Amino acid sequence: MFLHNKRMMYKVSVDEPNPAFAKMLLEQFGGPNGELAAAMRYFTQGWNEPDEQRRSMMLDIATEELSHLEMVAQTLHMLLKDSPSELVDQVEGNYLGDMLNGKMPDYVNMSLNSGPNILGGGGPRLTDSMGSPWTAAYIDTIGQPAADLRSDIAAEARAKITYERLIKFTDDAGVKDTLTFLMTREVAHQKMFEAALDSIEENFPPGTLAGDEKLGHAYVADSGNFGAAGKNSGPDTTGFDLAQDNSDWGFELDTEPVEHAAKQEAQ
Amino acid sequence: MFLHNKRMMYKVSVDEPNPAFAKMLLEQFGGPNGELAAAMRYFTQGWNEPDEQRRSMMLDIATEELSHLEMVAQTLHMLLKDSPSELVDQVEGNYLGDMLNGKMPDYVNMSLNSGPNILGGGGPRLTDSMGSPWTAAYIDTIGQPAADLRSDIAAEARAKITYERLIKFTDDAGVKDTLTFLMTREVAHQKMFEAALDSIEENFPPGTLAGDEKLGHAYVADSGNFGAAGKNSGPDTTGFDLAQDNSDWGFELDTEPVEHAAKQEAQ
Amino acid sequence: MFLHNKRMMYKVSVDEPNPAFAKMLLEQFGGPNGELAAAMRYFTQGWNEPDEQRRSMMLDIATEELSHLEMVAQTLHMLLKDSPSELVDQVEGNYLGDMLNGKMPDYVNMSLNSGPNILGGGGPRLTDSMGSPWTAAYIDTIGQPAADLRSDIAAEARAKITYERLIKFTDDAGVKDTLTFLMTREVAHQKMFEAALDSIEENFPPGTLAGDEKLGHAYVADSGNFGAAGKNSGPDTTGFDLAQDNSDWGFELDTEPVEHAAKQEAQ
Amino acid sequence: MFLHNKRMMYKVSVDEPNPAFAKMLLEQFGGPNGELAAAMRYFTQGWNEPDEQRRSMMLDIATEELSHLEMVAQTLHMLLKDSPSELVDQVEGNYLGDMLNGKMPDYVNMSLNSGPNILGGGGPRLTDSMGSPWTAAYIDTIGQPAADLRSDIAAEARAKITYERLIKFTDDAGVKDTLTFLMTREVAHQKMFEAALDSIEENFPPGTLAGDEKLGHAYVADSGNFGAAGKNSGPDTTGFDLAQDNSDWGFELDTEPVEHAAKQEAQ
Amino acid sequence: MFLHNKRMMYKVSVDEPNPAFAKMLLEQFGGPNGELAAAMRYFTQGWNEPDEQRRSMMLDIATEELSHLEMVAQTLHMLLKDSPSELVDQVEGNYLGDMLNGKMPDYVNMSLNSGPNILGGGGPRLTDSMGSPWTAAYIDTIGQPAADLRSDIAAEARAKITYERLIKFTDDAGVKDTLTFLMTREVAHQKMFEAALDSIEENFPPGTLAGDEKLGHAYVADSGNFGAAGKNSGPDTTGFDLAQDNSDWGFELDTEPVEHAAKQEAQ
Amino acid sequence: MFLHNKRMMYKVSVDEPNPAFAKMLLEQFGGPNGELAAAMRYFTQGWNEPDEQRRSMMLDIATEELSHLEMVAQTLHMLLKDSPSELVDQVEGNYLGDMLNGKMPDYVNMSLNSGPNILGGGGPRLTDSMGSPWTAAYIDTIGQPAADLRSDIAAEARAKITYERLIKFTDDAGVKDTLTFLMTREVAHQKMFEAALDSIEENFPPGTLAGDEKLGHAYVADSGNFGAAGKNSGPDTTGFDLAQDNSDWGFELDTEPVEHAAKQEAQ
Repeated sequence: MFLHNKRMMYKVSVDEPNPAFAKMLLEQFGGPNGELAAAMRYFTQGWNEPDEQRRSMMLDIATEELSHLEMVAQTLHMLLKDSPSELVDQVEGNYLGDMLNGKMPDYVNMSLNSGPNILGGGGPRLTDSMGSPWTAAYIDTIGQPAADLRSDIAAEARAKITYERLIKFTDDAGVKDTLTFLMTREVAHQKMFEAALDSIEENFPPGTLAGDEKLGHAYVADSGNFGAAGKNSGPDTTGFDLAQDNSDWGFELDTEPVEHAAKQEAQ
Repeated sequence: MFLHNKRMMYKVSVDEPNPAFAKMLLEQFGGPNGELAAAMRYFTQGWNEPDEQRRSMMLDIATEELSHLEMVAQTLHMLLKDSPSELVDQVEGNYLGDMLNGKMPDYVNMSLNSGPNILGGGGPRLTDSMGSPWTAAYIDTIGQPAADLRSDIAAEARAKITYERLIKFTDDAGVKDTLTFLMTREVAHQKMFEAALDSIEENFPPGTLAGDEKLGHAYVADSGNFGAAGKNSGPDTTGFDLAQDNSDWGFELDTEPVEHAAKQEAQ
Repeated sequence: MFLHNKRMMYKVSVDEPNPAFAKMLLEQFGGPNGELAAAMRYFTQGWNEPDEQRRSMMLDIATEELSHLEMVAQTLHMLLKDSPSELVDQVEGNYLGDMLNGKMPDYVNMSLNSGPNILGGGGPRLTDSMGSPWTAAYIDTIGQPAADLRSDIAAEARAKITYERLIKFTDDAGVKDTLTFLMTREVAHQKMFEAALDSIEENFPPGTLAGDEKLGHAYVADSGNFGAAGKNSGPDTTGFDLAQDNSDWGFELDTEPVEHAAKQEAQ
Repeated sequence: MFLHNKRMMYKVSVDEPNPAFAKMLLEQFGGPNGELAAAMRYFTQGWNEPDEQRRSMMLDIATEELSHLEMVAQTLHMLLKDSPSELVDQVEGNYLGDMLNGKMPDYVNMSLNSGPNILGGGGPRLTDSMGSPWTAAYIDTIGQPAADLRSDIAAEARAKITYERLIKFTDDAGVKDTLTFLMTREVAHQKMFEAALDSIEENFPPGTLAGDEKLGHAYVADSGNFGAAGKNSGPDTTGFDLAQDNSDWGFELDTEPVEHAAKQEAQ
Repeated sequence: MFLHNKRMMYKVSVDEPNPAFAKMLLEQFGGPNGELAAAMRYFTQGWNEPDEQRRSMMLDIATEELSHLEMVAQTLHMLLKDSPSELVDQVEGNYLGDMLNGKMPDYVNMSLNSGPNILGGGGPRLTDSMGSPWTAAYIDTIGQPAADLRSDIAAEARAKITYERLIKFTDDAGVKDTLTFLMTREVAHQKMFEAALDSIEENFPPGTLAGDEKLGHAYVADSGNFGAAGKNSGPDTTGFDLAQDNSDWGFELDTEPVEHAAKQEAQ
Repeated sequence: MFLHNKRMMYKVSVDEPNPAFAKMLLEQFGGPNGELAAAMRYFTQGWNEPDEQRRSMMLDIATEELSHLEMVAQTLHMLLKDSPSELVDQVEGNYLGDMLNGKMPDYVNMSLNSGPNILGGGGPRLTDSMGSPWTAAYIDTIGQPAADLRSDIAAEARAKITYERLIKFTDDAGVKDTLTFLMTREVAHQKMFEAALDSIEENFPPGTLAGDEKLGHAYVADSGNFGAAGKNSGPDTTGFDLAQDNSDWGFELDTEPVEHAAKQEAQ
C-alpha cells in the first residue's frame, strides 16, 4: 500500500511563469517518456515479478517515479501561475480582458495552449505537449525480465534525453535545477536496471527458445542500389561493416537476399 | 525508393487453418511489438540519421521488417482460409449456414473473431489480438542514437519473446517453422543494434549533459515497511543489494528519503 | 512524495484461478472506471487545488486508490496463476501442450485472453476487459471544484456499480471478499466528495457566470410525436413531469420549440 | 426517428471571424465536454432506459444537444469565414499568397490551425482544441440510473464551466450571446437530471449491494507526513475535518492505515 | 434544429435474444462503418456546404442515419434482452448464479462480452465489435465536394457490405428483415451521392490544380521479380494490363523505375 | 519481399528550412490521408486479394506509396534542418540560447512545434499536423473489391486535395516541385483504381445481396421545416431534385417519413 508525504521529493523551483514552456514540459507529465509512463511501466512489472530482488527494485523505482510525477505537476502549476488560464475561473464578470487590461496575451498564444486553458483551468492535463491523451499503449511491459529490463534501460535513456532537451530550451535557473534533479535520477535508474539485467546470467537471447543457428547470423543487405542496371546494382555493405566490426557474433553477409528467398508467392 | 519482389522472404507454411490462432498472431501484424511497429521504428530513425553506417543498418533492417510483415500477412491469410469469414463474401444467397450445413462454428466462436469476420472479410486488419488499432504511440523513436539503439535492442527482445510464446501455443509444424524464422531474425537484429551501440564510444549517459554527480548514485529505498510502528518500520534493501552487487557504479543507499526531501509542500 | 509499504491494504483472496473472470476484472485495472483512472482523477485535482482542506482530501483518496490499484493487480495475478499464460515463459522446449498434457484449454479460450496470454506473460496489462489501452481521455478533471467534485461523486458511483456487477458474476468467496472491500471504499469516497461539495456554499451553478434567467427554466420537449399528421402530432410531456414534480426550480414547458427557434438557416 | 428543421435552435451570431478563437471553441464540438459527447451520453442512456419518464427526459435532452452541436458547427463556420483555410480551395492558381497579398497570416499562425486548415478545408473537424479526435472513451454511460444521472449532472457542470471560460476569453458580443444561450441550457439540464435523481427514492448507494457497514465509514488518512522521523511523523487530518464537518455519515478517522493493512505481501 | 419522433423509422424485429450476434452487430453502432460514423460524416459536410442542393441532400441523409443509429440501438437492446448482462443490475442478493440456476452461461461466454456485460449494464456501448471506442479518426471529411462525395460513395459501399455479412451470419428472420432495410438504404444513399458527384461537371481531378501532365500517366511497375538475377529479373505488368485495358486514360508503363529515380540519396 | 534503393523516387527539393510548414506537411507523413495510410490500405488489400491482376496493381501502388513516404520524410528532414529542434542534441553545454544568440525563436514558436522539438530530435514523428499519433483506424479496407476500390478512389482524391492545399500554402519553389510530383501521382492512382473498378462487371451494389427493391428507391426528405405550424411545415425537396436530375435510378420522394415509420416505440 502507499503512503504520501506532502513534501516534494526535491525542491521545485520556478523563477517566473512561462506557459509556452509549460506546454513543452507536458511531455514529462502525460507524454510517452514521462513520469506516469515510467511509474506504470515499473509497477506492472513489479507487481507480477516472482523474483524478490527484482520486485523490490521495481517497486522502489516505480514509487520514486510517482514522486517525480508530483514534482512535474508542481512545476507545471508554477509555470502556469497567474496565466490567463489560471485566472479565468476567478473572474467574476464577463470578460477576462477587462481584468487583464493590456496584459492579456493575444489570442494566438491563448489558442496555442488551448488544452490547459479551456479544459484544465490552468492545471496540467495528462496529455503530451501536443495534446494527445496519455495512453497505456506507451507501456511496453511484456512480463519477461530479460526483455523488460532492456525496455526499462531504453525508457530511462529516452527520459534522460527528454529532460536534457527541456533543460536546453530554458534559461530559468530554478527550472533548470529541478529538471536536472529529475534527469539525473533517470541516469541512476538506468544503471540500476543494467545491474539487474547483468545479474541474469543467461539473458541473451531472452526467453527459452534458442532460434535457428544459421539464420541468426545472416546480415541481410536489402537496402542499397537494387533495381539499377549493370554493375552499380546491388547492396550496400556499410551497415554490415558496422555490425561486424563491433561484435564477436560473426555475421554472415547476404548480398543476394532474393536468391535466398522462398520460391513462393502470395496466393 | 522501394522495389517489391513477389516471393516471400522465407517459406510460409500452414498445415491447417486455425482462426483462433490467427487471432493471437495478429499481435505480430498490428500489435505493439509487431512487424509494422518494427519497420516504422527503424525507418523513422534511418531517414533522419546523419551517420552513414547507422543509416545503412537502419534501412537494411527496416526493409527486412517489411518483408516480415508480408510473411505474417500471408500466414494469417492461410490460417483464416476457408473460415466462415472468408467464405461469407462468396455466399450468393442469404445465409451462410445453408452452405456450411452442420459445420458452421457456433456464434460464440464467430463472435470471438468478430473483427476479421465482420470487417476484414477474412483478411487480417492492422490491430493487435484484442482488436485495438495499431497506433504510432507504439513508436518510441526519439532521434538520439544512444537512446534509440537501446530502444531498438529492447524492441527486438520483446518481439523475440512474442514469437516464442506464439510458437509454444501451436503444434502446427508449418507455422512453427515460419515463426521460428521470424523469431530468429529478431535475435540477429538485436545483435546488430548492440554492435551499433557499442560503436558509439561515449554512449552513457546518452546525450551531452552529465547530470548531478551525487544525485546520480543515490538508491532511494522508498518501498519497504514504511508507516508501520516500531522497529519493523522502514525500507527494504533487497533491491539495493541487487543493484550494488551487479554494478561498479557505486550506489549509495538512502533509507530515509523523507528526511532528504525538500521542505516544500504543494501549493 | 510517496512511500510504499509492501503489505496489501486489505487481504487479497482468490480461492481458485479463473482466467475468464480475470478478463472481466481488468475493467478495474485499466478500464474507464478503474483504480488508475480514480487515482489520476484525484491527483490531477489535488495537485492544483489551492484550498488546503480539499487538497488534503484529494491526496488522501488518490493515495488510497493507488493502494487499490495494487490490490486489483494482485487479484489478477492470482486469478491467472498457473494459467497457460503464466506457464508459457517457463516451458523449456517447443510446445506448451506437451507440458500441459490433456489439460490445455482449447485455442478458443486461449485466444479469448490473447492480450494477457501473448503480451502480458500472464500479468495484467493496463487495458479494459476488451483490450483497449487505458487512456487519459477517461480523466474528466476540469480544474473547478464545484464541477470536479460532481465528477468525482459520479465516478465513485460508477466504480461502485462496476464492482457490484463483478461480485455478482463470481461465486469465489475469496474474490467476493476482496471486491466487497473495494466496492465499499467507493461508497465511502462518494460520501466524502459529497461532503466537500456541500461545504462550498454557492455550488450551483458551478462557476461565476449566472446564465440567462429565462432560458435556464425552459424544458424543451423536442422528442415526442413530431412530424406526424393531425392531433397526434407533437411533444411528449412525460419527461417534463418528471423534472417538474421533483424540483422546485420551476421549469417552463416548451412544446413548440420550432416556433421559438431562430429564423436563421445554416449558410 | 429524427426530423431536422433547418432553422438554428437559437440565433448564431459572430461579429467577426477569429480563427484562433475557433480553435478554442472546438472543445465544444469534438471535445470531451462538447455537444456530441452530451448527445451520445444521453442517447445511449435513453435508448436502453426501461422507465418511461426517464427515457422521455433523456431523449428530450439528447435531441436538444444535437441542436446545440449544429449551432456550434455554425458558429465555427462563421468564425473561420474568409480565413485562409476557407479560401484555399477556391484559389485557381498555385499560391494562396498571391491572392491574399499582404493580408496572409504568417506561417506560424497558419500552422497553429493546421487541422482545420489542411484537413478541414475551413470546416471544423470532430476534434478537441488540441486536435485529438473525439473518442467514445468520453462517454461514461454505465446503464444504471442512479450512477448515470450523477454522471449526467457532472457532465453538465463541466460543460457549463467550459462555455463560461470560452465566454470570458472573447469580447465578440455576438459570440458571447450565442455561447451564453448554450451555457444556460447546460444549467437547465443539470437541474433536470437532479430532479430525475431525486425521484429515485433509494439512490444511495447506487445499485443493490450495500457494502460492508464498517469499512464504509473509515476515512483513511494516508497522505500527511508519513516516513518522517519523530513526532512530526504521520497523517494530516485536514481532509477528514472537511468530510466530517459537512456530512452526517459519521466518518471514522484512521490515522494508522498500515497497522490496519493485511499481513500479506505481493507474491 | 432536431426533432425526435419516438417511433422507429422501420420495424425492429428480433425473434430471440442472441448476445454473441449482438457483439458482432456492434460494428454498425460504434464501428468504423456504422451509423454514428455515417451521420457524423454527412453532418460535418452538410453544415459547411455552401451549395444549397448538396447541403440539403447531406442533411436529409445524415438525419436518416441518426434514425438508423436508433434502430441499431434498439436491435441491440432486444438481442441482449434477459441476458445476464441485463439481469445483473436487478439481482438483489449477492450472486447472479443463484437466480439463473443452471442456465447461467459459462464464464468464457460472459467474458467474451465483457464490455456490455460489465460496463454497459446490458446496453450497447459506442465501440466496435472488438471493444475499441468509436473515434472521429473514422471520419474522412475533407471539405471539398468532389473528394467528399467519393468518400461518401465508398462509405456507403462499405456499410452495405457490413450489413450483408451480418445478414449472412444470422438466421433470425426478424433480425434479417431489420438489417435488410438498413442495408438497402445504404444502396439508395450510394446512388444519391453518385448523382451529386455527377452533377459536378469538372469533378476530376478534384480541386483546382491540374498536376503534371506526364507524371500523371506513368504506371510504375515496382512490384515483380526485382532483385533476382538474370532474365527472370524485373517487373510484372499484370497490374498495368488491368489499368490499361479498362481505361482511356492512356497509362505509360514504367518498368525501370530505378533508372527514372532521382540521383539523390537521403542525407 | 522488399528491396530498398537509396535513391529518392523523385528529387526532393527544399529551398529553405521552414519548421511551421513542416508541421503542416506532417499530415502526409502520419496523417489520415498520408503516405503511410495509403501504403497500408493497399498492402492489406493486395496481400489478401485472390485476383492476380488486382493483387499486382495493389502491390505496385502500395510499394510506390512507401517510396512516397520516404520522400515526405526527406522533405520534412530538410524543412527542419538547423532548426532549434535539430540543433538541440548537438549543444554541449547547458543552454541552447547561448549558441543561437539572438536568433533563437521565441518560446511560442518552439512550443507550437513541441512534438518534433522535444520528442523527435528534429525528425518527424508519425503524427498528423496536430500531433495525434497515426492510427490504423484510418485504414478502411473491408476485404471486398467493389467496396475497397471505391475506398481507394476516394482516398486518392483526399490525398490529392491535401497535397494541393499544401502547395497553395507555400511559395518555396523546391517544395512546390516535390509536392506537385506527389500530388500528380495520386491523380494517376485514382485513374488506376477506377479502371480496376470498371473491370468488375457487376460492381453495383457491391456484394451478393440485392436489397429490397422498393426501399432502395425512396428519397427520405427528413430535413426541412419540420415541426413548424401551418403551411410552411414540412420537407425541403432540394436534395431530392439534385439526386433525381442527375441519375436514372428513379428515386421516389417521401415527404411524410413519419407516416411511413413503424408503429413501434423503443422499449
